[in-house]
Amino acid sequence: MTTDDKAPRVLVAGFEPFENDPVNPAWEIARALEGWRCEGTVVQALQLPCVFGRSIHVLDAAMAGIAESGRPLPLVLCIGAAGGRTEISLERAALNVDDARIPDNAGYQPIDIEVEAGGPAAYFSTLPIKAMVRDMRAAGLPAAVSNSAGTFVCNHIFYALMHRLATRPMLAHTRGGFVHVPYLPEQAASRPGVASMALQTQVEAFRVAIRTALLVRDDVRETAGRLH
Amino acid sequence: MTTDDKAPRVLVAGFEPFENDPVNPAWEIARALEGWRCEGTVVQALQLPCVFGRSIHVLDAAMAGIAESGRPLPLVLCIGAAGGRTEISLERAALNVDDARIPDNAGYQPIDIEVEAGGPAAYFSTLPIKAMVRDMRAAGLPAAVSNSAGTFVCNHIFYALMHRLATRPMLAHTRGGFVHVPYLPEQAASRPGVASMALQTQVEAFRVAIRTALLVRDDVRETAGRLH
Amino acid sequence: MTTDDKAPRVLVAGFEPFENDPVNPAWEIARALEGWRCEGTVVQALQLPCVFGRSIHVLDAAMAGIAESGRPLPLVLCIGAAGGRTEISLERAALNVDDARIPDNAGYQPIDIEVEAGGPAAYFSTLPIKAMVRDMRAAGLPAAVSNSAGTFVCNHIFYALMHRLATRPMLAHTRGGFVHVPYLPEQAASRPGVASMALQTQVEAFRVAIRTALLVRDDVRETAGRLH
Amino acid sequence: MTTDDKAPRVLVAGFEPFENDPVNPAWEIARALEGWRCEGTVVQALQLPCVFGRSIHVLDAAMAGIAESGRPLPLVLCIGAAGGRTEISLERAALNVDDARIPDNAGYQPIDIEVEAGGPAAYFSTLPIKAMVRDMRAAGLPAAVSNSAGTFVCNHIFYALMHRLATRPMLAHTRGGFVHVPYLPEQAASRPGVASMALQTQVEAFRVAIRTALLVRDDVRETAGRLH
Repeated sequence: MTTDDKAPRVLVAGFEPFENDPVNPAWEIARALEGWRCEGTVVQALQLPCVFGRSIHVLDAAMAGIAESGRPLPLVLCIGAAGGRTEISLERAALNVDDARIPDNAGYQPIDIEVEAGGPAAYFSTLPIKAMVRDMRAAGLPAAVSNSAGTFVCNHIFYALMHRLATRPMLAHTRGGFVHVPYLPEQAASRPGVASMALQTQVEAFRVAIRTALLVRDDVRETAGRLH
Repeated sequence: MTTDDKAPRVLVAGFEPFENDPVNPAWEIARALEGWRCEGTVVQALQLPCVFGRSIHVLDAAMAGIAESGRPLPLVLCIGAAGGRTEISLERAALNVDDARIPDNAGYQPIDIEVEAGGPAAYFSTLPIKAMVRDMRAAGLPAAVSNSAGTFVCNHIFYALMHRLATRPMLAHTRGGFVHVPYLPEQAASRPGVASMALQTQVEAFRVAIRTALLVRDDVRETAGRLH
Repeated sequence: MTTDDKAPRVLVAGFEPFENDPVNPAWEIARALEGWRCEGTVVQALQLPCVFGRSIHVLDAAMAGIAESGRPLPLVLCIGAAGGRTEISLERAALNVDDARIPDNAGYQPIDIEVEAGGPAAYFSTLPIKAMVRDMRAAGLPAAVSNSAGTFVCNHIFYALMHRLATRPMLAHTRGGFVHVPYLPEQAASRPGVASMALQTQVEAFRVAIRTALLVRDDVRETAGRLH
Repeated sequence: MTTDDKAPRVLVAGFEPFENDPVNPAWEIARALEGWRCEGTVVQALQLPCVFGRSIHVLDAAMAGIAESGRPLPLVLCIGAAGGRTEISLERAALNVDDARIPDNAGYQPIDIEVEAGGPAAYFSTLPIKAMVRDMRAAGLPAAVSNSAGTFVCNHIFYALMHRLATRPMLAHTRGGFVHVPYLPEQAASRPGVASMALQTQVEAFRVAIRTALLVRDDVRETAGRLH
């Protein structure tokens, strides 16, 4: 991002590849949105390492850099891949627990450790997730609210982000949340039976979702509940 | 429960049938365990109405009755049906939100309402859920940790229970949590493709789980994490 | 089977364990039904090796033995495990192809070989599969018609059986078919997320299914179709 | 198709919308391929009515028209939607049975009727389905062999097509088969949890598959088997 304009930033942070995959749709989406202008803002893309701890330091540095530049930061979206999901999933809540089924990209595998020692058990997304789902669906793009972001690095960055937004004065006007995305077709091609979504479809969904997140202040009251 | 002995109580509360089903495995399990003696305790079964608000009043009354009788209450297990699940699911966390996809048995359908106004975003189960899963599996009984109890009456009672255990001095020594259970075979018989588990298998799993919950103080460090 | 009575036989043949599993529900069901008397017949259990070719020789020998004893053989049911299925599955058709994703218990892995060289592309089950499903469901037992028995040893024995029933005069009055069954709970206990069914539930379902197969001549016209 | 050249035709027949859906990916794919030139052939698109009987008359007329024009017809591909599938599914076999779970677009719902009275129980696809799957996957496009085309209009047209290819001298040099395809994203947008695939991805997969079908004479020996 070399532009020196003072437009507000939308920070879109996607994870790097992990678990032997050469690609991660999360980063491909972020990269594709870099520089996109929407409702007076400009998207800034950020690649996150798939590593407990280090990922949040990278996010911290990017948020600090934007603050130092004097640009407002109305929105931070973190994105992670969720192999097997069929739709763009807006996560509702982040839990204060790291419980890794596999090691992260640095070989670290925490089990039942708090993300933030002494932090609250969970944070809710501050995005208008139901309006975002409504608008993506209206545009013909598969999307849903999800009630669990898992307990791996995705939930970790989600919780750490929301903790910062809740506790740091300089981020008092920033909304944030986490989005899980399906595999790309080329990832599913070697995994029989697994769902996927074209990159172009995913990027289009994010354009709709970001616009809604910038325009809708109070989320709509539409059920996205699950019985269990 | 007519026995007047002073043995500690394990309160096992299962929901009544809902959504046009004549039976609910949750209540069938609770009923089958009524009076079962385990590690010096006696199980007391309780039927919960599938109604927001009223369910927790019924649970409150039962816990108060046990307190008044002078009996210790080391353990409270709430149980609900989760149509489609294949295994006994020990829930990890309850969220402070009611978001009902369908009306409850009283016709009430809250959307994005807090379970407890001003309460924390979530509570974690205080059961040794990983040791319980480990022991059920070792006994040949399908079980798993789940990271979402949904947003219906099951999550509602789970959150309300944990809120009471966390805030009421008289319940300071009581552990509690929520367990989702599969359909019974007779429920699956009219729902092609849906998984089920025999009542006998489910009850056997609860006997193992309750014993572990009474004996294991600190949960084991075994991953039950999910990537997403 | 030591009884020397001349009652007609129902041959129930279940596969031995395979793919590192210590148990196979198919054989457990057959064994549990050994000697069961139903509508004037007696069940004779047979264990099938999970081996292309050899399995049908074992079945041939058992059918020949019954013929030599002078007892009628109105019914032959072959049973195989279908890990992941949720219900008792009555197979509709057997294909004339062996296409093995893994080696059989003898290390043989045929790919796109005919079961019977020059045989027809397929045989339909001659069981009243829809009446059987109807009656199992009415008894509260999960069951369904399946349109594919796969292409492994299960489909192999199914095709070979139907080929014999269609072409051998001595078997002109014998009906036959194949049933896929879910895992047992102890198998699912080490496979998170996989469905299972208690042995007792499975055996009960077979008692209902066998009675219907003996009593219903012309199958009922109830749809069990799938769109795809 | 107004071109009057004498190039061989590849007939790609896709079903019209059904069951209240305004769109059917099967027809969208066929339409998108109309006129595409591949290995000296030209694709001719055909819309099939989703009606038992009538669909095959429409296909018959199109094949007769091509024959009358003197153009060779090396390949006929029929396409149908399979809601819920995640990948392009090459069907292995067609069964001689109509068993409709819902009425077709003309309100007809046959149950256990033969597609062709007295026809063989099944036909195998004459496409090199394994080479086609291999090449689609190598191009990063999700694809698989399927062992059941269901028992609705899709299986009906598949069986009827293969019966004609097997019995009519004028079609002796024509290969044919059936392909099930996932929903489009706009269809999945109103069906939470259901998989989809972008039209562009689907069309790209068919370009690869058609080229392979034209170039590969003898199918490869690679397992695509299923255990059940």
